[in-house]
Amino acid sequence: MTSPSELRKDPISGRWVIIATERSKRPDEFRSERWPPRRKPGAALFCPFCPGNEAKTPPEIYAVPGVGASPGGAGWRVRVVPNKFPALTRGETPIRNCRGLFESLDGIGVHEVIIESPDHDKDLPDLPPDHVRDILSACQSRFRSIEAEPQYAYIQLFKNKGPEAGASLSHPHSQIVATPIIPKRVKEEIFASERHFRRTGKCLFCRTLVEEIEAGERIVRANGHFAAVAPFASRFPFEMRIFPRRHSPYFSAAAPEEIAALGEILQAVLSTLKSILDDPPFNIILHQGPHRARAREISPDIDRIAHWYIEIIPVLTRIAGFEWGTGFYINPVVPEDAARFLRG
Amino acid sequence: MTSPSELRKDPISGRWVIIATERSKRPDEFRSERWPPRRKPGAALFCPFCPGNEAKTPPEIYAVPGVGASPGGAGWRVRVVPNKFPALTRGETPIRNCRGLFESLDGIGVHEVIIESPDHDKDLPDLPPDHVRDILSACQSRFRSIEAEPQYAYIQLFKNKGPEAGASLSHPHSQIVATPIIPKRVKEEIFASERHFRRTGKCLFCRTLVEEIEAGERIVRANGHFAAVAPFASRFPFEMRIFPRRHSPYFSAAAPEEIAALGEILQAVLSTLKSILDDPPFNIILHQGPHRARAREISPDIDRIAHWYIEIIPVLTRIAGFEWGTGFYINPVVPEDAARFLRG
Repeated sequence: MTSPSELRKDPISGRWVIIATERSKRPDEFRSERWPPRRKPGAALFCPFCPGNEAKTPPEIYAVPGVGASPGGAGWRVRVVPNKFPALTRGETPIRNCRGLFESLDGIGVHEVIIESPDHDKDLPDLPPDHVRDILSACQSRFRSIEAEPQYAYIQLFKNKGPEAGASLSHPHSQIVATPIIPKRVKEEIFASERHFRRTGKCLFCRTLVEEIEAGERIVRANGHFAAVAPFASRFPFEMRIFPRRHSPYFSAAAPEEIAALGEILQAVLSTLKSILDDPPFNIILHQGPHRARAREISPDIDRIAHWYIEIIPVLTRIAGFEWGTGFYINPVVPEDAARFLRG
Repeated sequence: MTSPSELRKDPISGRWVIIATERSKRPDEFRSERWPPRRKPGAALFCPFCPGNEAKTPPEIYAVPGVGASPGGAGWRVRVVPNKFPALTRGETPIRNCRGLFESLDGIGVHEVIIESPDHDKDLPDLPPDHVRDILSACQSRFRSIEAEPQYAYIQLFKNKGPEAGASLSHPHSQIVATPIIPKRVKEEIFASERHFRRTGKCLFCRTLVEEIEAGERIVRANGHFAAVAPFASRFPFEMRIFPRRHSPYFSAAAPEEIAALGEILQAVLSTLKSILDDPPFNIILHQGPHRARAREISPDIDRIAHWYIEIIPVLTRIAGFEWGTGFYINPVVPEDAARFLRG
């Protein structure tokens, strides 16, 4: 008897996953687990991110103005504000406190919200391409500004869509969090790339992309600057990584034509997800190198071993005891099948 | 202005968490996010774990008989069967396949289900203490049997309660999964203990327990053999770890009086969770050392540095983009406050 599953190891994170190979679930088998809308029938709809409610957020940090815009007021296309309930707040490099084994730091950092458009009901696939470029450029602009302050060791851009994916507001938005230490997951990836570099002289992310393109069967979509892949050891059904073809540690260094190409591929793959999985909840996560001033904590070769990329995780399955205890994930969809569905 | 949050590092896993210190959420603020029951009104109720349906599961592996029991049939108090839809299946040590960066193994392992009692509606806090001892002893018996086969590098016992926690059936049950490799999370904990041992000659888990008892403020409950703690760097609200006071790498080596004391403390803390959080979904996870025959992959001192313990995670918050990208967690309840609520 052959095993109904296969263990696969992700070369970037070092994570093992269990892939159910006997029979992949189809996209339409994931349509049932949606939460009911949170808003009670008859409850008033108030959205602090909608136009006209600008005074309900902390003061605007950055905006892409539309026609007839007034600064801090109406007329914006994209708007960036501090998170009203921040996980971390701005300050100087925090001091480590140790009491025996217990180590802590003040919660210093940055927490901002990118309100992606004035339209409450239009998400990334529904917006004009030039609007998506404006969103990505606004994020880049915020990254460049935060990078000027080296006490923020790592900048994380992410988007939570749907309550199951952790979104507390439905108006399309993304978030930026900058942390005073280099996160564990970031270290793991960069250390893996460092080991690969010592052995081969090459960037692990570049090499992964080369091998995925050679294999072909997990490529979802590609354009001149990016390739979207259903990773060999995907933890989750229909998970994707979008790799820039040009080696670069930092998102802020992407050229305008790369931003346009990223917008194109993002819109295309999100539009497919929306149609084959019936508008699923998802998370989008940007991975990149730590702040250059802090990179030596990890490697002197950070510019050669870190490589930014984007991860998209549809929220279709549950994290349960096995995953918490082991760090293994069980994926009921073979990544090659996922890629086939995602190619449409 | 002081920061409204604190970063804390867990000495065992090395994970950083962000604790919202400004205002801890109270237990009753977590009562709203429950999923609706899955069963449609009027749908027939069929449970493969209920008495009378023994033939609907794969053949029984082990049972604790009740009065007038018939082997493989009715009258059992606790019943262990293979998982009908196993993540991994039994076999010989699998061979690693490598194609460039992509590494895989056949899905060899063990996947069993412990049906905790014949009663569909009684969970651990509702059962008589001697029944809970029988469940734990049945698990120990299965561990001893699986330990006889060294191709299974790690044995994981876990319980998922509620659909939000990943349970697909509501009849109270736990699961055992044995994996052919030592999972990443297990390695991380043992490596942390190894580093501590090299520095101090002591077990990190024993030391953590000593420091938690000295600090006192995060102790939830204790008896002669165990202490339940809201960990200093809890990722989740009302998360707990139950440490055995006696140093031992393996759950299977717990003495009968330790099993009785574990049952007592488990029933007590689960009963409190049930009452203060209105019967929340949760995961219970057993952590222990890898198989002795495989331990040298990690350390020659495995008997001195591995220490089994139990983790309880109520499922009250969402994992979102920030957590996926960084491995950080944001916890809206200060562990010292959680411990106060959990002490009742």
